[in-house]
Amino acid sequence: MDNKDTKGISIKKNENFSDWYTELIQKSELGDYTDVSGCIVFRPRSYAIWEKIMDLVNQRIKKLGVKNVYFPLFIPEKFLLKESDHVKGFSPEVAWVTQAGDTKLKERLAVRPTSETIMYPSFSKWIRSYRDLPLKINQWSNVVRWEFKHPVPFFRTREFLFNEGHTVFATKKEAEEEGPKIIAMYKEILEDHMAIPSFFGKKTEKEKFAGAEYTLTLETYLPNGRAIQGPDFHHDGQIFSKAFDIKFLDENGKEQYVYQNTWAISTRMLGIMFALHSDDKGLVLPPKLVDEKIGIVPIIFEDSKKKVLAQAQEIKKMLNNYGAFIDDREDYSPGWKFSEMELKGIPIRIEIGPKDLTKKQVIVVKRNTSQKKEVKISQLKKVIPQLLDEIQKELYKSAEKLMKDNIVSANSFKDVLKLINNNKIVLAPLCSNIECEDNLKDKTGGAKVLNIPPEQSNLKGKKCIICNKDANYIAYIGKSY
Amino acid sequence: MDNKDTKGISIKKNENFSDWYTELIQKSELGDYTDVSGCIVFRPRSYAIWEKIMDLVNQRIKKLGVKNVYFPLFIPEKFLLKESDHVKGFSPEVAWVTQAGDTKLKERLAVRPTSETIMYPSFSKWIRSYRDLPLKINQWSNVVRWEFKHPVPFFRTREFLFNEGHTVFATKKEAEEEGPKIIAMYKEILEDHMAIPSFFGKKTEKEKFAGAEYTLTLETYLPNGRAIQGPDFHHDGQIFSKAFDIKFLDENGKEQYVYQNTWAISTRMLGIMFALHSDDKGLVLPPKLVDEKIGIVPIIFEDSKKKVLAQAQEIKKMLNNYGAFIDDREDYSPGWKFSEMELKGIPIRIEIGPKDLTKKQVIVVKRNTSQKKEVKISQLKKVIPQLLDEIQKELYKSAEKLMKDNIVSANSFKDVLKLINNNKIVLAPLCSNIECEDNLKDKTGGAKVLNIPPEQSNLKGKKCIICNKDANYIAYIGKSY
Repeated sequence: MDNKDTKGISIKKNENFSDWYTELIQKSELGDYTDVSGCIVFRPRSYAIWEKIMDLVNQRIKKLGVKNVYFPLFIPEKFLLKESDHVKGFSPEVAWVTQAGDTKLKERLAVRPTSETIMYPSFSKWIRSYRDLPLKINQWSNVVRWEFKHPVPFFRTREFLFNEGHTVFATKKEAEEEGPKIIAMYKEILEDHMAIPSFFGKKTEKEKFAGAEYTLTLETYLPNGRAIQGPDFHHDGQIFSKAFDIKFLDENGKEQYVYQNTWAISTRMLGIMFALHSDDKGLVLPPKLVDEKIGIVPIIFEDSKKKVLAQAQEIKKMLNNYGAFIDDREDYSPGWKFSEMELKGIPIRIEIGPKDLTKKQVIVVKRNTSQKKEVKISQLKKVIPQLLDEIQKELYKSAEKLMKDNIVSANSFKDVLKLINNNKIVLAPLCSNIECEDNLKDKTGGAKVLNIPPEQSNLKGKKCIICNKDANYIAYIGKSY
Repeated sequence: MDNKDTKGISIKKNENFSDWYTELIQKSELGDYTDVSGCIVFRPRSYAIWEKIMDLVNQRIKKLGVKNVYFPLFIPEKFLLKESDHVKGFSPEVAWVTQAGDTKLKERLAVRPTSETIMYPSFSKWIRSYRDLPLKINQWSNVVRWEFKHPVPFFRTREFLFNEGHTVFATKKEAEEEGPKIIAMYKEILEDHMAIPSFFGKKTEKEKFAGAEYTLTLETYLPNGRAIQGPDFHHDGQIFSKAFDIKFLDENGKEQYVYQNTWAISTRMLGIMFALHSDDKGLVLPPKLVDEKIGIVPIIFEDSKKKVLAQAQEIKKMLNNYGAFIDDREDYSPGWKFSEMELKGIPIRIEIGPKDLTKKQVIVVKRNTSQKKEVKISQLKKVIPQLLDEIQKELYKSAEKLMKDNIVSANSFKDVLKLINNNKIVLAPLCSNIECEDNLKDKTGGAKVLNIPPEQSNLKGKKCIICNKDANYIAYIGKSY
């Protein structure tokens, strides 16, 4: 028996989340470290899920009239410098190409940290008249942000993959109306496919995207007590259109600057999904995002081998739509196979032995709960889709419970601090003074405003937990990745 | 009437191919230049086709057991240096990242020109036993080769997109058996989908991939008399496995180096496809690769407007499966709309006016031949798929005729030179001496051996056109991109 790399995970999730996560990523063959600091390999098991996310987004944005494009990886330095907030936000993390072959470049080139500044000179050329609007494009790309914080596979890597939607409108109204549509699309993919719950809100001025007028985000809660930002939508108003001279002639022949949005979902979501659902036995995945949903383990004894294998084949054929596969290797024990399927996150395991054969049944085991069930073979085609659906919903509910249990309200700094130190996300009143936000960070050892929910009916009479003046909003506060 | 950017192409394909092509790419909105020298924008009309090519390849390689992955964009210099032929081949064109933010990097990082040297250190870690083989992975990526030759959109850009298959086997036999399968896959996509004919063969030692044992290619012929290399397959033997220490324990417990292949198709094929099929009116595309296959132009007069538009709507609905759309803009003339659809490569145009209405018919126009046909509306659902199929086949046949007409055999250098100066590809005998290949290039002003076809039954008695010694093969020779 060769159980080399596929030994189980040795660290408990609730004892040392960080080391557990690192082990999970490697032993479940999701990702791997490389010699490029902060950059990882997306192995087949994780990349296949990213391909599914891309498909889901593509199907949805196509209906919104968005078309995919590809712009250059490199951005001439002069373009990056055009919008001052944007360059301030990104230049500390830019990887610079300065040389090609033996030739020193005249102007250094930024490896895109995001593509506004390489796309918008083209937009300025392409957009002439109101007839050219709206312009809705999207790009799937690799981007590089050379962060000097500690990298964590999927959560924070120096190169990551994302979609970047870039849309252009004639009026502010039209541009802003896109926001809820994009957020709803991302929220649906998170909830219904990745089984990730999230809370919605607007970023503060301090935390918004560099160059945006405002930023809307979905954030979620991780088992280690940290919040993490998910997909986002930025309304840029006319900030970039003025910097990049993107103008159009309106129906009255008057020249106007366009209004712009950008929006993104990144491979970070894969890490969030792995971390939320997985356990001490390994990977747990939402069935909707797995091709091989069912692993069949025949329990082989010499005298009944032929019959059991034949029955396993029949079941595989019956459940072909769910990517059923048989592990019939003879030099591995059933127990070893069970562990391997658990490690790799196969949503349902079917065990079939000689005794089951006589009863015309199999044992069906749900990966997320380890719940075992005897199911008549004649019932499998009915039961399996129900169980898959059940698993999908249970994963969401359990992650949602974790999130809800860890969001609490408080009105004084003392309570907020205690809760944050207790790994909670706190809904607390704040004023919009940026100094209060800075103070909050200092005094809590790094907690920040995650976002501000739209619902603000409880604001009346509330005081900012930092300065005690009238609060402007009740915001989500927490430590964040 | 506003006919701004959408004016037709002003240059004739057979008068000035190069300028015609540049105009085509821009006016048909396929690509655009950027301020990054040699890098282009893939606009929606070209990127959508690349997405289809990716789908076609993905479907086919999945059946071969290949899984997609994503490796880092950056390659530490020490990795790039590990295989000497490989580094010699690529280092003159490598873009180097030397700085991140304000920090000078300790080791400079290559922006991948191809991913062997970033992938294979991982392969060396992952592969331990014969049980881990074959390992078959593929990556869709952007790569950068900072060529100093004149860049041409799609044909030769400093950043381009490609698939890179990287497969690993226990034996040379297994590895080499993959070659014909991969070549057959690419050939089918070229022929049946892109309508691109090609000729197959092996590269010479001089022209093979840097680091390969041998290279197989599909090459084709462009209307300007130049050959161009398409998809390729490289058998690397144990060259990289020895450089990167990729070993496994075989079934007898003996340590062995693995055998490797790589294979690729790139966005260059888009340029080849645009150039082959398009004409002086604009873009011509194989119907299979177009979503909007049918453009309906209602011929509107005030008195019959309502009826004509209603009929157009009905036809659109009837042909929904073919992505039919109506251009019912009232401030553009039918003639302008015809030209625009021609420029943008809509495979079939349907014209419908009041006279057609009474006859219960429409005018159907094929983009590639401009052939017009009256078709009864009741017959449309039958006729349209036939016509689309006809167009697809005609495009292939016409490109194939061009290629075949321009491949000729010759046995003396004098004849070869004349033919090459006459924009032909020549099948001529050569010896395998690399000096003869160098001489060929010098004496012809740049012609080279494109590839060597497997069929060599006519070799007997043939002499090398350069040195007049016994020929080792009959090879395709031509000027190439």
